[in-house]
Amino acid sequence: MVIEVDSAADPRIADYTRLRDTDLRKALESEQGLFLAEGEKVIRRALATGHPLRSLLTTRKWLPSFADLPADAPVYVVSDAVMENITGFQVHRGALASMGRLPLPAVQDLLGPARRVLVLEDLVDHGNVGAIFRCAAALGVDAVVLSPRCADPLYRRAVKVSMGAVFAIPYARMADWYGGLADLRRAGFQTLALTPDQNAPAIDKIPLADRVALLLGSEGDGLSSHWLAEADHGVSIPMSPNAMALGVDSLNVVAAAAIACHALLR
Amino acid sequence: MVIEVDSAADPRIADYTRLRDTDLRKALESEQGLFLAEGEKVIRRALATGHPLRSLLTTRKWLPSFADLPADAPVYVVSDAVMENITGFQVHRGALASMGRLPLPAVQDLLGPARRVLVLEDLVDHGNVGAIFRCAAALGVDAVVLSPRCADPLYRRAVKVSMGAVFAIPYARMADWYGGLADLRRAGFQTLALTPDQNAPAIDKIPLADRVALLLGSEGDGLSSHWLAEADHGVSIPMSPNAMALGVDSLNVVAAAAIACHALLR
Ligand SMILES: C[S@@+](CC[C@H](N)C(=O)[O-])C[C@H]1O[C@@H](n2cnc3c(N)ncnc32)[C@H](O)[C@@H]1O
Ligand SMILES: C[S@@+](CC[C@H](N)C(=O)[O-])C[C@H]1O[C@@H](n2cnc3c(N)ncnc32)[C@H](O)[C@@H]1O
Repeated sequence: MVIEVDSAADPRIADYTRLRDTDLRKALESEQGLFLAEGEKVIRRALATGHPLRSLLTTRKWLPSFADLPADAPVYVVSDAVMENITGFQVHRGALASMGRLPLPAVQDLLGPARRVLVLEDLVDHGNVGAIFRCAAALGVDAVVLSPRCADPLYRRAVKVSMGAVFAIPYARMADWYGGLADLRRAGFQTLALTPDQNAPAIDKIPLADRVALLLGSEGDGLSSHWLAEADHGVSIPMSPNAMALGVDSLNVVAAAAIACHALLR
Repeated sequence: MVIEVDSAADPRIADYTRLRDTDLRKALESEQGLFLAEGEKVIRRALATGHPLRSLLTTRKWLPSFADLPADAPVYVVSDAVMENITGFQVHRGALASMGRLPLPAVQDLLGPARRVLVLEDLVDHGNVGAIFRCAAALGVDAVVLSPRCADPLYRRAVKVSMGAVFAIPYARMADWYGGLADLRRAGFQTLALTPDQNAPAIDKIPLADRVALLLGSEGDGLSSHWLAEADHGVSIPMSPNAMALGVDSLNVVAAAAIACHALLR
C-alpha cells in the first residue's frame, strides 16, 4: 500500500519524526515496543527474523527495491527533502522501517542451550554494544546478557555497527542488577570478570569450564566491585608494560571483548 | 592573555568556527597545519608532546583550569551559548585548543627504532583510526604507518577515541600508496596482510620475524589486492564456522587489530 506523504508533520509518519531527539526517541521506542531499521539489508534481516513491519518510509528512488514487502503494511513515499527534514541525517540507502519488537526471552531460557555468553554491565554506548554483537557472531558466542541499564541493541546505531548481528545473536536483559549473576551460576556457568588490573591472571592461563560467561564493564567505571566480587575469577588481558607511560590504562571494551572471545575459541 | 569574545562571528576565533562542516574543517586543518584538541586532559597531552598552542577557547567556568598555560597564547572566553553556537555540540569539559601540527617523520625514519608496526590502508573512519591507536599503545605496537588516504589521527573524534594515544604512538604517512610497502621491506619487516579469508593461515600459526608489520584494510573493501599480493603472507583470525550463517563475514577492523596485536605479544 503505497502512500505519498508531502510533509514531515503528517501524523501518519509519526513513528519516524523527532528522530533528532535521541532521548525522546529512546523513550518512544522502548515504550511502544518499536524500533527503526535503516537500509534495505538491515530491514530484510529484521523481517527474516520475524519482526513485524509496521510501516516503511522511503523515497521514490528506493521504492522499487521494496516491491515484494508484505502488502498490508503502509509504504510512505516522501521527497528527499522531507526525508532529510524528518531524520536530520542522510538515511543509508534511502529507507527506514518502523518495526515491532519481539518479546525478549528470560535470562534463564536464553542460557539453556548456550555454552559461551557475554554479559555486559551498563555499557551505554550504542556503537560499542553493536560492535560487541558483531564480535559475538564472528567468534562463536551463543548469547548476550545485558544489565538493566545497558544500551538498547535495537537502537539505530547499534544495529548498524553490528552489521545486523543484533538480529542473529539471541539476547536477554536482567530484571535486576544486584542479583544478576545468580541465573548464570544456577545454569552452571563459570563467570570470568574482565578487568584491566594486570595483577589478575591472564585469561589464557585460566582453565575453562564447559560453560563460560565473560563479564565486561563500561568505558568509564569498568565492572562494578559487586560483580567483580561475585564472579568466579577476575581475569585480565596482558597489556604492554609501556602502556601506562603512554597514558593508556585499559583497552576499549570492544577490543577487550574481541581478544577475550578469541581466547575462548582455543 | 584572556580575551572576552561575545560573538561567534568574531574573526579572532576563526580557527574554531564552521566546525559543523566536517569537510571544510578537514581541509582547513591539513592546509594550515592546525588541529583542535578538546578537553583539558587531551589539551595537556598535546602540549606535553610539544604541539604549539595557537589559542584556547573556553567558558568562564573552565577558565581557572588553564591558569598555568603558556602566557603568550590568547585565551578566548565565550558564553556557553556562543560555545555551542560555534561548535554545534557539547564540548567535552568546556575547552577547545587550536594547536599547530608537528612535521611527521618520513616512513623510513619512523621504522628505524620500531619492532612492531601497524599499517592502515585507507581507513576512513576517524573512530576506527583512534581506537586502533589506543590498541597500539595498550598492546606494545611501536609505530603506525598510514596510507595516503587514511583518515587523520588528529581529527577531533580520532583523538578522543584514542584517549590521547595519537600523541604517544609515533606515526607517518606514506607518500605513495602503490609502492608504499617498499620502505617496510627495506627495513627488514615481515609484512602480514590481515584478511578475513579463512583459507589464509591463522596468525598464531605463522613464525614471526624479529620485525613485524600488520597490514589492516578498510570496512568496505578490506585490503587492496595489490597490498595482499605484495605482503609476505596473508594471515587470518579464525572465526566461528557459524559466522557466515549469522550474516557476519568479517570482524570490525578494530577488533581484528586488537586480536592481531595481542597475538604478537606472544
Ligand atoms: C575501558 S575498560 C574500563 C576501564 C576502567 N577504568 C577500569 O578500570 O575497569 C572497559 C572494559 O573493558 C574490559 N577491559 C579493558 N581492558 C582490559 C584488559 N586489559 N583486560 C581485561 N579486560 C579489559 C573490562 O571489562 C573493562 O570493564
Ligand atoms: C571489515 S574487514 C573488511 C571486510 C572486507 N569485506 C574483506 O573481505 O576484506 C576490515 C579489515 O579487518 C581485518 N579483518 C577483519 N576480519 C578479519 C579476520 N577474521 N581475520 C583477519 N583480519 C580480519 C582485515 O584487515 C580487513 O581488511
